[in-house]
Amino acid sequence: MMNKLEQIRIDNPLIICYTNDVVKNFTANGLLSLGASPAMSEAPEEAEEFTKVANALLINIGTLTHENEEDILKIVKIANQQRTPIVFDPVAVGASTYRKKFCQKFLAEVDVTVIKGNASEILTLVDSQTTMKGTDSDNSLDSVEIAKKASDILNTAVVITGKDDVIAQNHQMIKLSNGSPLLAKITGAGCLLGGIVASFLFKNTNPSIDDLIEAVSVYNIAAELAEKASYVHGPGSFLPELLDQLYQLEDVTYEKYLKKEEV
Amino acid sequence: MMNKLEQIRIDNPLIICYTNDVVKNFTANGLLSLGASPAMSEAPEEAEEFTKVANALLINIGTLTHENEEDILKIVKIANQQRTPIVFDPVAVGASTYRKKFCQKFLAEVDVTVIKGNASEILTLVDSQTTMKGTDSDNSLDSVEIAKKASDILNTAVVITGKDDVIAQNHQMIKLSNGSPLLAKITGAGCLLGGIVASFLFKNTNPSIDDLIEAVSVYNIAAELAEKASYVHGPGSFLPELLDQLYQLEDVTYEKYLKKEEV
Amino acid sequence: MMNKLEQIRIDNPLIICYTNDVVKNFTANGLLSLGASPAMSEAPEEAEEFTKVANALLINIGTLTHENEEDILKIVKIANQQRTPIVFDPVAVGASTYRKKFCQKFLAEVDVTVIKGNASEILTLVDSQTTMKGTDSDNSLDSVEIAKKASDILNTAVVITGKDDVIAQNHQMIKLSNGSPLLAKITGAGCLLGGIVASFLFKNTNPSIDDLIEAVSVYNIAAELAEKASYVHGPGSFLPELLDQLYQLEDVTYEKYLKKEEV
Repeated sequence: MMNKLEQIRIDNPLIICYTNDVVKNFTANGLLSLGASPAMSEAPEEAEEFTKVANALLINIGTLTHENEEDILKIVKIANQQRTPIVFDPVAVGASTYRKKFCQKFLAEVDVTVIKGNASEILTLVDSQTTMKGTDSDNSLDSVEIAKKASDILNTAVVITGKDDVIAQNHQMIKLSNGSPLLAKITGAGCLLGGIVASFLFKNTNPSIDDLIEAVSVYNIAAELAEKASYVHGPGSFLPELLDQLYQLEDVTYEKYLKKEEV
Repeated sequence: MMNKLEQIRIDNPLIICYTNDVVKNFTANGLLSLGASPAMSEAPEEAEEFTKVANALLINIGTLTHENEEDILKIVKIANQQRTPIVFDPVAVGASTYRKKFCQKFLAEVDVTVIKGNASEILTLVDSQTTMKGTDSDNSLDSVEIAKKASDILNTAVVITGKDDVIAQNHQMIKLSNGSPLLAKITGAGCLLGGIVASFLFKNTNPSIDDLIEAVSVYNIAAELAEKASYVHGPGSFLPELLDQLYQLEDVTYEKYLKKEEV
Repeated sequence: MMNKLEQIRIDNPLIICYTNDVVKNFTANGLLSLGASPAMSEAPEEAEEFTKVANALLINIGTLTHENEEDILKIVKIANQQRTPIVFDPVAVGASTYRKKFCQKFLAEVDVTVIKGNASEILTLVDSQTTMKGTDSDNSLDSVEIAKKASDILNTAVVITGKDDVIAQNHQMIKLSNGSPLLAKITGAGCLLGGIVASFLFKNTNPSIDDLIEAVSVYNIAAELAEKASYVHGPGSFLPELLDQLYQLEDVTYEKYLKKEEV
C-alpha cells in the first residue's frame, strides 16, 4: 500500500533541491506532479530559513564546480544542525578525481540520510579503485553486495539503481524490479528519483526501509505505466507521460505492479 | 479584442530575460510560442547593446545568489538609462530575509514598470511583517486590497496572480478569472507570465491597463484551453499543450472566454 | 545511407557539452534520443579526465558571462592537447562587442574542428562590420559565400544553418534543404544541432563532409517528420515528437527524404 504518497499529495512537503543545471526544471516538474513543493534555493544566506521549514534537502553534484562546492558545504551543515534529512546523489563520482575528492570531503563532514546512485557510483564512494564512463551504470557489478557494504561503511540508507534496484537500510536489504528502459534515454531520470526519495522523508533522518521502497517503486511503476501508454513511442513522448503517471498513480495499480523481494 | 498579440506575432519583440535557473528553457519556449524573441543574456558587459534593442527586460529572482545580485543591479540601471521597461518578479520574497533585503534595495534603486507576483509576495514588498512557504500563494489574502496598496506605494503597475488575478495600474483596478489549476502543477508557470507581460510592453514604461489585461488573459485562456484538450490528463501533457495554445490562440476564442470585471 | 548514426546508437559516444543555461536539458535529451552519451561537465579540474574519454567537446556561448570565459578557455586547451575535436557555436556573436571579442580571442587561441552558426553569426566571425538582432538569422545573406569564406579564413569545417543549410569542409561545399519552420519556434534547436554534429565526430578532428552532411540531415529530417506527425499542432507538441523521431529514424526514411546538392 502507498502510505506516504497520499500524505505527500495532502501535505505538499517542501523539498530543497541543490541539484545540477541540466535537470532543475525536470526535477521541479517531477516533484510537483508527485505532490511535493520543490524549491531550488542555492544561496547559503537563506539556507537556515529554507531548511527549517523543509522536509528534506537534496544534494546532487551532477554539474559540480569550484564555485558551488563551498555553498553546498555551508548549506548541508545548516541542514545537519536543524536535523533536516539529506539525500545525496554522487553523480558520476567515478568519472573524475575532482568529484571523488569532493565526495570524500562531503561524506566526512556531513551526516547523510540516504545515498542514491548506480552501482559504479556507490562502489566508488567505498572503494577508490573503481572507474566508470560518465554517469552510466555497469550492470556486471553486484548491487546487493555493494549496497550492503556501503550502508555498513557509510552508516546511511543506500539506494542503488540499475536494471534492478537495491535498498539497504537498518541491516535490511530489498531488491526491486520495476522500471522502464526508457528512463535511461531521458536526462535526469536518476536525479529526479533523488528528489522523490527526499519527498518521502518527512523530516525523518532514519526512514524505514518501507518508506524507501515506496519512493523508488512509485517512480518505477509510474515509468513502467508510461512506457506502456499507447501514444508513447520514444523518449520524447515518454517524458510528459511519466509526469502524468506520477500525478495519477493509484494504490490498486501500485499493488498490482509492485515487484520486490528480500535479498 | 487582442490588439497587442497580433503585433507580437508580426514584430517578434526582443525580450531580455534575467530569470531563474529552473525556468529559463520553459520561459524561452513560452515566449517563442507567443511570438516574442527571448534572449537570456546575463552579462552586464553586453547589457547596453542588448537593452537598447530590447522591448522590455524581465528580472526574476527565483534562484538569487550573491554572485548574480550585482549583475542584476548593473543591468537594470542600464535599462533605466535607456528607458527600457522592466518587469520585476520577486519570487518567494517572503521566504527569506535575504530575498526581502535584496528586493528592498532593488525597488529603492530601480524604476520598475510592472511588478508581478502572488498576493503573499506583493504584500511582503509593502509590509515586512508577512511570511510565506516557498513560492505558494495564500488564497486568504485580499488581492484587490494588496494590489491597490502596492501600486500606490511602489508607483508601478501591479499584477497579482492567484485563483483570480488582479491588476492595478494608473488608479484603475481589474479582476480576471481565467486560468487552470494545472498551472500550479508545473514549474515556472508564474515566471513565464512575467515574460509574457514583458512581451506586451513594446518599450512603453507606462502601459495601459488594457495591455496588461491582454497579457494576463492571453496566457490564462491558453491554459484554460490546454486543460480542456482531450489528450491532456495531467501536468505532463498540459505543458506542451499550453505552448501550442499560446501559439494558436485566436481572437474569437479570446473574446468568448475572457472573464474580467472592474473592482 | 546513414553510416555514422548506426555507430552512435551502438557505441553511445561520450560528448562533453559546455553549453548555455537555457538549453542544457534539451541538448542532453536530444543527444540521448540520438544515441550519444552527453555529459555537461563545466569544471576545468576534471576536463582532462573527461575529454580524454570523450569523442568530442561542444562549446556554446549562448549565456556567456565573465565567470565562465576563463573556464571555457582552460577546458578547450586541454581538449586541444588531447586532440579531442571541438564544435564551436558562437551564439548571437553579432549581438554584442563582448561576444565578438570573446570569439576573436577563442578562435585565435584554439583549434576548432567545426564552427556552426547562422549566416549572420558566421559572417560576424570573419567580418567585424556586421550586426544582428539576437540569435535570429538574416535570410538575405548568401550562406554559400559566407561558408566558403569562413572555412578558408578560419581553416575549419563550417556549418551554416538557415532555411537551407550549407556545409564547407576541405574545399567541398554542400547545400542541404531539409528541416521545419517549427525549429525556429523552440529554443535550443540550433544548439542541439551543435551537439549532434559533435556526436558524429568520433574523435576525428578532420571529419569528411559526408559525416557532417549526415549529422545535419539526420536532425533536419527528424524535424521534418515531426512536423508532419498527426498529433503535432504547434511548438509544444513538436518538441517531444522531434526527440522521438531522432530516436527512431531509419535508413530508408533518411534516404527517401534527403535533399542535398553540391554548390
